Amino acid sequence: MIGGGTGSFIGNVHRMVAAIDGQIELVCGAFSSNPSTSKSSGKALLLPEDRAYGSFEEMILKEKELDAKTRMDFVAVVTPNFMHFAPVKMALENGFHVVCDKPVSFNLEEAIELKKIIEKSGMEFALTHNYTEYPMVKQAKKLIEDGALGNLRKIIVEYSQGWLATKLEDSGQKQAAWRVDPKRSGAGGAIGDIGTHAENLAEYISGLKITELCADLTTFVEGRLLDDDANILLHFEGGAKGILHTSQICVGEENNLNIRIYGEKAGIEWHQQEPNSLRVTYLDKPYEVHRTGSAGISDYSNGVTRIPAGHPEGYLEAFGTIYKKFATVLQKLEAGETPTTEDYDYPGIEEGIRGMLFIDKVIESSNAGQQWVKMEL
Amino acid sequence: MIGGGTGSFIGNVHRMVAAIDGQIELVCGAFSSNPSTSKSSGKALLLPEDRAYGSFEEMILKEKELDAKTRMDFVAVVTPNFMHFAPVKMALENGFHVVCDKPVSFNLEEAIELKKIIEKSGMEFALTHNYTEYPMVKQAKKLIEDGALGNLRKIIVEYSQGWLATKLEDSGQKQAAWRVDPKRSGAGGAIGDIGTHAENLAEYISGLKITELCADLTTFVEGRLLDDDANILLHFEGGAKGILHTSQICVGEENNLNIRIYGEKAGIEWHQQEPNSLRVTYLDKPYEVHRTGSAGISDYSNGVTRIPAGHPEGYLEAFGTIYKKFATVLQKLEAGETPTTEDYDYPGIEEGIRGMLFIDKVIESSNAGQQWVKMEL
Amino acid sequence: MIGGGTGSFIGNVHRMVAAIDGQIELVCGAFSSNPSTSKSSGKALLLPEDRAYGSFEEMILKEKELDAKTRMDFVAVVTPNFMHFAPVKMALENGFHVVCDKPVSFNLEEAIELKKIIEKSGMEFALTHNYTEYPMVKQAKKLIEDGALGNLRKIIVEYSQGWLATKLEDSGQKQAAWRVDPKRSGAGGAIGDIGTHAENLAEYISGLKITELCADLTTFVEGRLLDDDANILLHFEGGAKGILHTSQICVGEENNLNIRIYGEKAGIEWHQQEPNSLRVTYLDKPYEVHRTGSAGISDYSNGVTRIPAGHPEGYLEAFGTIYKKFATVLQKLEAGETPTTEDYDYPGIEEGIRGMLFIDKVIESSNAGQQWVKMEL
Amino acid sequence: MIGGGTGSFIGNVHRMVAAIDGQIELVCGAFSSNPSTSKSSGKALLLPEDRAYGSFEEMILKEKELDAKTRMDFVAVVTPNFMHFAPVKMALENGFHVVCDKPVSFNLEEAIELKKIIEKSGMEFALTHNYTEYPMVKQAKKLIEDGALGNLRKIIVEYSQGWLATKLEDSGQKQAAWRVDPKRSGAGGAIGDIGTHAENLAEYISGLKITELCADLTTFVEGRLLDDDANILLHFEGGAKGILHTSQICVGEENNLNIRIYGEKAGIEWHQQEPNSLRVTYLDKPYEVHRTGSAGISDYSNGVTRIPAGHPEGYLEAFGTIYKKFATVLQKLEAGETPTTEDYDYPGIEEGIRGMLFIDKVIESSNAGQQWVKMEL
Repeated sequence: MIGGGTGSFIGNVHRMVAAIDGQIELVCGAFSSNPSTSKSSGKALLLPEDRAYGSFEEMILKEKELDAKTRMDFVAVVTPNFMHFAPVKMALENGFHVVCDKPVSFNLEEAIELKKIIEKSGMEFALTHNYTEYPMVKQAKKLIEDGALGNLRKIIVEYSQGWLATKLEDSGQKQAAWRVDPKRSGAGGAIGDIGTHAENLAEYISGLKITELCADLTTFVEGRLLDDDANILLHFEGGAKGILHTSQICVGEENNLNIRIYGEKAGIEWHQQEPNSLRVTYLDKPYEVHRTGSAGISDYSNGVTRIPAGHPEGYLEAFGTIYKKFATVLQKLEAGETPTTEDYDYPGIEEGIRGMLFIDKVIESSNAGQQWVKMEL
Repeated sequence: MIGGGTGSFIGNVHRMVAAIDGQIELVCGAFSSNPSTSKSSGKALLLPEDRAYGSFEEMILKEKELDAKTRMDFVAVVTPNFMHFAPVKMALENGFHVVCDKPVSFNLEEAIELKKIIEKSGMEFALTHNYTEYPMVKQAKKLIEDGALGNLRKIIVEYSQGWLATKLEDSGQKQAAWRVDPKRSGAGGAIGDIGTHAENLAEYISGLKITELCADLTTFVEGRLLDDDANILLHFEGGAKGILHTSQICVGEENNLNIRIYGEKAGIEWHQQEPNSLRVTYLDKPYEVHRTGSAGISDYSNGVTRIPAGHPEGYLEAFGTIYKKFATVLQKLEAGETPTTEDYDYPGIEEGIRGMLFIDKVIESSNAGQQWVKMEL
Repeated sequence: MIGGGTGSFIGNVHRMVAAIDGQIELVCGAFSSNPSTSKSSGKALLLPEDRAYGSFEEMILKEKELDAKTRMDFVAVVTPNFMHFAPVKMALENGFHVVCDKPVSFNLEEAIELKKIIEKSGMEFALTHNYTEYPMVKQAKKLIEDGALGNLRKIIVEYSQGWLATKLEDSGQKQAAWRVDPKRSGAGGAIGDIGTHAENLAEYISGLKITELCADLTTFVEGRLLDDDANILLHFEGGAKGILHTSQICVGEENNLNIRIYGEKAGIEWHQQEPNSLRVTYLDKPYEVHRTGSAGISDYSNGVTRIPAGHPEGYLEAFGTIYKKFATVLQKLEAGETPTTEDYDYPGIEEGIRGMLFIDKVIESSNAGQQWVKMEL
Repeated sequence: MIGGGTGSFIGNVHRMVAAIDGQIELVCGAFSSNPSTSKSSGKALLLPEDRAYGSFEEMILKEKELDAKTRMDFVAVVTPNFMHFAPVKMALENGFHVVCDKPVSFNLEEAIELKKIIEKSGMEFALTHNYTEYPMVKQAKKLIEDGALGNLRKIIVEYSQGWLATKLEDSGQKQAAWRVDPKRSGAGGAIGDIGTHAENLAEYISGLKITELCADLTTFVEGRLLDDDANILLHFEGGAKGILHTSQICVGEENNLNIRIYGEKAGIEWHQQEPNSLRVTYLDKPYEVHRTGSAGISDYSNGVTRIPAGHPEGYLEAFGTIYKKFATVLQKLEAGETPTTEDYDYPGIEEGIRGMLFIDKVIESSNAGQQWVKMEL
């Protein structure tokens, strides 16, 4: 693991979720750019002293020297955005597969460059746009693929939080500080931190790409350097229209990612905070609520369910599914087998590039006086 | 009553809600442009034969001749949009107060003209933007007026329906037929029929006017002449930003009007379909659910509540509140008293003009390639 | 109307709900046992002075003298429980139909006696167990009648309130005062005031009668003379088992009447506070939510719906349905027609006797050390 | 681990949840009474061949021989109920700490005997009544301990499922088969499998013990040998009254464990299927919804929260908290430190005995014609 030292939010998440399914073991880490922090984090994580490294460069080079059985099988990169590119690149080029936190890079150029590096390296790469992995997200995607909704017409996706409604970054809160700093976070504030999840979710479930957008970015908290709110009109392939709105100043909202999609024949509605229910509406009969693991759910959805219906599965489980599938892919490759399409059903560099493109285009639109721009490279 | 013959939806609503509080009695009507339909409607409504008139002109002139105790006290106009102006004008000019269904007129010019007529006539005028009359809408407005939210930052308002997701107007359904006909409905489809309610609700609760907007109108159902879907970015006075989206093709949505407003210190959320709950979110404590007539509710809100908490009040009760207040105003005026601000707390011609302006500007924006336009006369 | 003077809760409810459908007009009343209160109430209700009577006896006798067109068509009795029997009896015996608030009488003996009087009089009688009249209650009943649930197994019905969690009766609150007074309320406290609604609802929807019960009554608020809480085990005809619990000390509960019924094949769940939704669960497919007036709802349920789906109908509308049907029955009888079974689908004396029997048996069981007792006359 | 071979539900759960926090590693197992199944399960779990044992006896004896660093630190017993006692006893007597699935034993006698064995052994013992470990359960318990509810009056606890509404055990479903078999499950069906969770939750949150009960057990599915439904009246210490109902024939219910507790001043409501919300109701102000990890939550509750508010935590996380605390206790003991009260805040043998006593008393009451019985040893 690179990044994710003591006190890290997302590093701890990656460790918990990688462990759930008993297929992955944390064997080494460069947990901080500060070598002593890295060492103490390693100790707290019960690692042998010699596998908590002082830098990611050291880790990659030393692990490479170890025998195949001992050395790490892949690297998880969980640093702030500006520190994704270098370790991902170096890991890939030294023959390690990579799981990378989102957004994939500091800017679009890096993302495009990474794609080339991945292709050249032949290594596997996963990007933790974790929200696509909930069982009811899979169910929604499956219903749409199977034509249950008919042609899609309208997509409304939202990702609202309230934790940055005040100037939290001035209080020394570490999570807030780097997210609102353009040097560490990149050009997008809320739009990068959480807006890309919404964009990814909408494209994933609908199977449609955004073709153009008109964005209205705002920074409500005085003195903040990046956007903390965005309202965006969307056009999708095939004529569907939509709205994406995201914010970190919606007082009282925790992690309110939700989506609705309406087609000619039916509609779906899903809320991340109550993720085990999927509302399905129809033209001519009462609406249904599809429930994780319950009667009438597709095999595709059940494939990412771990426990029986009514035992709520949450954020960590969904997140862990990326690791679980990634481990399956690596095991199959090692065993000389070919992973299936379903094994590979997790986000990768293409989703990463879409995310970075989205950030760029949203900012371009907003800066141009909220004009429509095409979402293309 | 003018319009609202047998089979009418909104005419029947007006009759039920006017009756609830025991202050208003239906005494006469011109229920249809077809005299024999008007007569038979009158009979079904237990009216004396001579007070079901063949035309609104006849009604206004004949009622005017009756003695003050017998003749109608005011006129309710519940015809399709294109038939609002003429009867409202004639009633006012002949000394009758008027309650008019929304939108106030066929186009903006008529609305502006009506304002002049009202002022000249000295008569009272109410417009049935009924959704502002729910107790929890009043509670939300009061919280904002009292500063509980601080300066407002974001307003998200939606009015979605699904009943026009197919080409219902071709099936002979009368309600659908006139609403999608530009000759009877006006320039707006969904945007006029329900979008104006959303616009009115947002401005009413927030106390802020929309200053400019960028609209993306769509007609999804092939062959339909008016919009059936709209996604709109909003700017409000004082720097608040927002989204208004409305649709009649959201399969499975019934009458999903809802609003959220976030300020610096707190937020509110209200859903018309479960109107007796108001979620109030805070920066630093658990969210609350304010409930109609329950502990902790303002006198202002309780003033429009009829029964104890937990006995759900619905659409008809809220609608009836306009009639109740209108009756109070007329009674006080008749008694030589001055109605209070609270007595007059119902929509009138100003709200009607805002609604017509909104329709015009949305269409102007959308037709100009979804550009920003100022929302001003 | 007998009872229901100024400040009355239920009297005002009866007046509002009787008016909604435009079939019933308040023409006279004896609104209080205090003649001057009755007079002033009549004035406030816009009645002619000579039809606000000083006593119910006076009203019945004088109205009887009026010509058929002028005199009242029926009497609504909305007094506290101990004052039901005398006016109902006198009205019936003088040729007036009667609508009576629940519970039907002060004790079981009176209820049995009333049945005889009704039969002898040939007059119509309705009892306002209003909660059976919600559209989604009708939908639930219909599903069960049609066999959608199969044989019923388990019924859980609850009616919880919190308004008597403190000794409100000592504060001079009139509604509280008579309800906890055995001389005015009868032998039951919560069990009579609201428990009978729960019993009635369970028997109505299920179509099954309670055969025996085991009750645990409690008075939690010190110094109160009647029960304010009850937990009851139930056995129904056909082997179904159940629970009825009711309370007026459940802090924060408003008017939480809800019911669930599980059969061999499906289940239903309904909550009075959100009355327009009915959850229907199945063995082998996702659960559905049936919505008032929406797609897939039975004609039987739609027959008591007044407005389109998504326009919430509430307590007053459901209550008004009893009056609406009662008016239909009277109109048909007057016209020499035979009312249909559906016209007569409102509670009457049989439901009244069941309610009084229930109160008696619950108290008998609880007093005997919470033993099982048969629920039979 | 003892039990929990391939295809096991609860064994897999124990493995996932033990792994989440990175403190516990599966090192060996006797996964089945069939040695070859045990071996193949071990292989699937990536264990070395020599640590997948043919029987629990073999495992305990051989592990005991290993050096302290290598051998297992504790044993997790996840067999069906009838196979709890022997391995737990042997593990304890051979110096291993034990985590045991619930109910603790096949019958009450075994549970009492186990208590003596635990005390004599000096080993640590945890029982996985996992539902007490949700953050919002802790929050509810804390509110009550702090007096926010005042004296408690009413407790309503339910645990309903629908998966045994048909005779699933005849279909070869392994989970169903042993649960309805008195030889493997014990004297209780639903009452043992899930009713004990409800009993445990009610006593845990309220801090009150059940003193007597009156139970109505039913077997609805023909030919089944154990109860599949129970309705129970409860009396608690201090005068609180309550209801516990549990069922496995409530068609469409998944894992509907929920509880409400009303005191003199406030009330709480919690639902396991949406575990991150806790409703708190008050006498004199709007109700609140407390949310896992969100503003206004106690340190005690936050102590079992792993991720920020709005990232839903579920069943596995709550279950894992028992393992996390158990590991903390063992680590502290090993380090010569004294675990805190909060470290020990997980269920143990006392809760196990209460559960077995509850099963016995429920059956005794029901068999005696649903009479009241004291819940004491």
